Amino acid sequence: MMRDIDDLPKIKANYTALTPLWFLERASAVHPNRKSIIHGPLSYTWRQTYERCCRLASALNQRSIGVGSTVAIIAPNIPALYESHFGVPMSGAVVNCVNIRLNASTIAFLLGHSSSAVVMVDQEFFALAEEALKIWAEKSKENFKPPLIIVIGDETCESRSLEYALGKGAIEYDKFLEAGDPKFSWGPPEDEWQSIALGYTSGTTASPKGVVLSHRGAYLMSLSGALVWGMTEGAIYLWTLPMFHCNGWCYTWTLAALCGTNICMRQVTAKGVYSAIANHGVTHFCAAPVVLNTIVNASPNESILPLPHPVHVMTAGAAPPPSVLSSMSEKGFIVAHTYGLSETYGPSTICAWKPEWDVLPLEKQARLRARQGVRYIGLEFLDIVSTQTMEPVPADGKTIGEIVMRGNCVMKGYLKNPKGNEETFAGGWFHSGDLAVKHPDGYIEIKDRSKDIIISGGENISSVEIENTLYMHPAILEVSVVARPDERWGESPCAFVTLKPGVEKSDKGRLAEDIMRFSRKKMPAYWVPKSIIFGPLPKTATGKIQKHQLREKVKKMGPVKLSKL
Amino acid sequence: MMRDIDDLPKIKANYTALTPLWFLERASAVHPNRKSIIHGPLSYTWRQTYERCCRLASALNQRSIGVGSTVAIIAPNIPALYESHFGVPMSGAVVNCVNIRLNASTIAFLLGHSSSAVVMVDQEFFALAEEALKIWAEKSKENFKPPLIIVIGDETCESRSLEYALGKGAIEYDKFLEAGDPKFSWGPPEDEWQSIALGYTSGTTASPKGVVLSHRGAYLMSLSGALVWGMTEGAIYLWTLPMFHCNGWCYTWTLAALCGTNICMRQVTAKGVYSAIANHGVTHFCAAPVVLNTIVNASPNESILPLPHPVHVMTAGAAPPPSVLSSMSEKGFIVAHTYGLSETYGPSTICAWKPEWDVLPLEKQARLRARQGVRYIGLEFLDIVSTQTMEPVPADGKTIGEIVMRGNCVMKGYLKNPKGNEETFAGGWFHSGDLAVKHPDGYIEIKDRSKDIIISGGENISSVEIENTLYMHPAILEVSVVARPDERWGESPCAFVTLKPGVEKSDKGRLAEDIMRFSRKKMPAYWVPKSIIFGPLPKTATGKIQKHQLREKVKKMGPVKLSKL
Repeated sequence: MMRDIDDLPKIKANYTALTPLWFLERASAVHPNRKSIIHGPLSYTWRQTYERCCRLASALNQRSIGVGSTVAIIAPNIPALYESHFGVPMSGAVVNCVNIRLNASTIAFLLGHSSSAVVMVDQEFFALAEEALKIWAEKSKENFKPPLIIVIGDETCESRSLEYALGKGAIEYDKFLEAGDPKFSWGPPEDEWQSIALGYTSGTTASPKGVVLSHRGAYLMSLSGALVWGMTEGAIYLWTLPMFHCNGWCYTWTLAALCGTNICMRQVTAKGVYSAIANHGVTHFCAAPVVLNTIVNASPNESILPLPHPVHVMTAGAAPPPSVLSSMSEKGFIVAHTYGLSETYGPSTICAWKPEWDVLPLEKQARLRARQGVRYIGLEFLDIVSTQTMEPVPADGKTIGEIVMRGNCVMKGYLKNPKGNEETFAGGWFHSGDLAVKHPDGYIEIKDRSKDIIISGGENISSVEIENTLYMHPAILEVSVVARPDERWGESPCAFVTLKPGVEKSDKGRLAEDIMRFSRKKMPAYWVPKSIIFGPLPKTATGKIQKHQLREKVKKMGPVKLSKL
Repeated sequence: MMRDIDDLPKIKANYTALTPLWFLERASAVHPNRKSIIHGPLSYTWRQTYERCCRLASALNQRSIGVGSTVAIIAPNIPALYESHFGVPMSGAVVNCVNIRLNASTIAFLLGHSSSAVVMVDQEFFALAEEALKIWAEKSKENFKPPLIIVIGDETCESRSLEYALGKGAIEYDKFLEAGDPKFSWGPPEDEWQSIALGYTSGTTASPKGVVLSHRGAYLMSLSGALVWGMTEGAIYLWTLPMFHCNGWCYTWTLAALCGTNICMRQVTAKGVYSAIANHGVTHFCAAPVVLNTIVNASPNESILPLPHPVHVMTAGAAPPPSVLSSMSEKGFIVAHTYGLSETYGPSTICAWKPEWDVLPLEKQARLRARQGVRYIGLEFLDIVSTQTMEPVPADGKTIGEIVMRGNCVMKGYLKNPKGNEETFAGGWFHSGDLAVKHPDGYIEIKDRSKDIIISGGENISSVEIENTLYMHPAILEVSVVARPDERWGESPCAFVTLKPGVEKSDKGRLAEDIMRFSRKKMPAYWVPKSIIFGPLPKTATGKIQKHQLREKVKKMGPVKLSKL
């Protein structure tokens, strides 16, 4: 039934596609002279950034790159990577940010899978891109269409790789921009469902899948991300989180909405983080738990403490160990713990803090803060459901189920992957693959990736809970626990451990015994790791520990023998 | 051309209608025990508010009120008015908030025009509603369908009107809620373009028009309003602005998104505002310039100064006189000056403040702050165009044109008014009817309503500029300037003035002379008001001065005679 009151059509005056691109135009109009980006000695204002993005879009259009094209960029957190988040979609194309820590053959796979027509590459990664292109060309044979190669020079990069790239015929990024029109007349997409970005999952468990995001979703997530974090106009944001990781959780676009300032960092070090706080007045940054670990364990000559002003830190990924959270709080960082996936535009839950928790002991606070919390303002539906029945689990803090979500901050789908889409969207929900409980207060807490659960003697063991306990051991810097085949129990926990500076050279046999003793005091006997392996942990580009590599290692080690029991 | 990368459909998992209703459900889930509303001795928590809104929606559905219906509410800023913003649309119906200061025949007109099937009315306004219904019934004759009448009792209201209403057979609001289900299973609208609210323009210039707003627009405006104002989670908001005025500029919904606290006020007094700041820690409120005027001119026994904490005030409507703005700043209020209309969901521009302005003299700051500024984050397009050619005017701070807007924060249209819609949306823009200049920095400044411009000897005179100057005169509390027919010049300025306490009894003839002398020093001769009239100013329910009434008064006075020159 059409009612009078709904009989008013969408017209040009009252309806336009949602897109975060307007945020940049607005920032340039409102605060033209405010710093948009600071990168070492280089800086731009919002007007300059806007003009550079117009030039990029215009130069791409001149080369027939626009709606229908994908532009790949391989770069660390430098201004060009920020600019690509606006300039590429302003041309109509989709931006495909490539993880710089992937190897050449994986990059070859995803350039080919995404049919990227342009590859923008930071000078340091030119040789890597060159190798990837070679592999791609070999694999596609006569179907290979060589992409346009643009190399991005960066003065903070010491290598001579720029010269090398130019010698190979690559166009320099700044030259490419010169050809573009700083007053380029771009427009929003015709349909807000149009794709804005493509990003490949970092592959902790399987081969990369191309996550496709829309203009609408990016717009909504950018605003939601500011609101849940209490970020306001003029925020000063430090790029420790790679922008190529899920478009920097959409904060690339948020910063333009807030007319804030982006502080770039080519490489993340504790010293770099503390200097940026002191020199640029950083108010916010995002970081994986391992980065927090580096920050809290920084030596006195790397850190600047007490902090000159409150600094908000958002963390996500694996559940950060309570001990790290409580260390951060002690140092004066205000940690917001969030949870999300590339498929949800970055974080989609936050452990919304309650003032009444302020009076609790720090350790209890850290334990509360370690929960993944409640849905973002921008996410409409979130639940924990039984993996068998898809029915919601009770809010008892005990029953484990899968986190499922739906709403406007869920991806469009995986690129060219109907089977993957069918599985991941089964039953009208996005399936996160993460296992969690719901507490009586409605806050969720992850117990494990469905693939990370350890099943020992028929009992489920949460590898995360073992890790959280082991993090309290004074010698442990990082720990990751996986299932090891076990002749008696089917599986048993195996802990991979790296040690804090100063204890690396201790007797490993004794240390292992000490850790086991410590564990027996703190957890059920069947949770105590039967094997403890010391050494560096394999990580993804975003600092996530790659449990699948540890699992392979464990497989090669063979099962825990009956005799050992 | 459909590309692989856009070949991913909207499905249940990744697309849902945008609606601000989810904010309430989320607030109830995240902060169930936090105060949602405080109204005198009464208060509710977010869980209670959510349950009450569920009950309201459910009880309406039980009476066959839902998609297709309009529910009118006639009430001051009491909890039920807040609840109607969620409960009514959760039932599927559209909420029509009626200005309580309208007379019975106007209310009769708009209840009939909107075909309201339910009338919820605060006890104090029951007799008014009764009269309106009588007029409506008489006018519609056999077509009249009596609406369901619900009377809202309010303990802060002293009158015996509740008894009277119940005696007349009205259902009491709280009784009505009792019949509803607190766990009512509501859902978002099927289409985010569905209407959520209807509000009639206050009619400063013409008969009321019904402005229709969508769920999508209300969602976007609620978030945008928080972001441009730096409002964060847990804000404490004082309701000085009537919620019936454009849904409280959408802050009704914003407060739920922020899980903040609403402080209600049945009547706005300076003393009430200051006590709410002291007792409830109010962080934000919105107010028309005349309310600011009351606040800055409060006597010492009404005010609490210095303020115990910073208080953010958003003002809009007519451009607030710089003198009032600078008084507010001196007292420690942080004033955000915005501009908008019912047709743009409330404010759509803000005078975004620049830190570099902080060092300027207060009067210069106030002058900058009096500008209407730049577009909201949520408004995509704003320009000032020539009323003749529709071409943008130069950004010279001088050339006057009409403010036009388009984007997602523009209304769906006027209800049952194709001619009005055609005019207001001419050329694909929403025409504000306000005349402004664009400064070289891109900030806009209103010079007049198109109907308020004074044309004297062929020259345009901005009535607002004359008012701003007259506000600097020490005896003037409020002033409004309109065109008076003039035998020699066609039109000349006529000033209506109310005086500050203490000078009301001065000799009016001398005062008029003094004001003219003052004016001659400060403005061009042809701007100096030729007539000055003392007395109270007619105002709309939202405190806007009704210039059309002054114009009628002036018409009756007849033209300024040649002899007088």
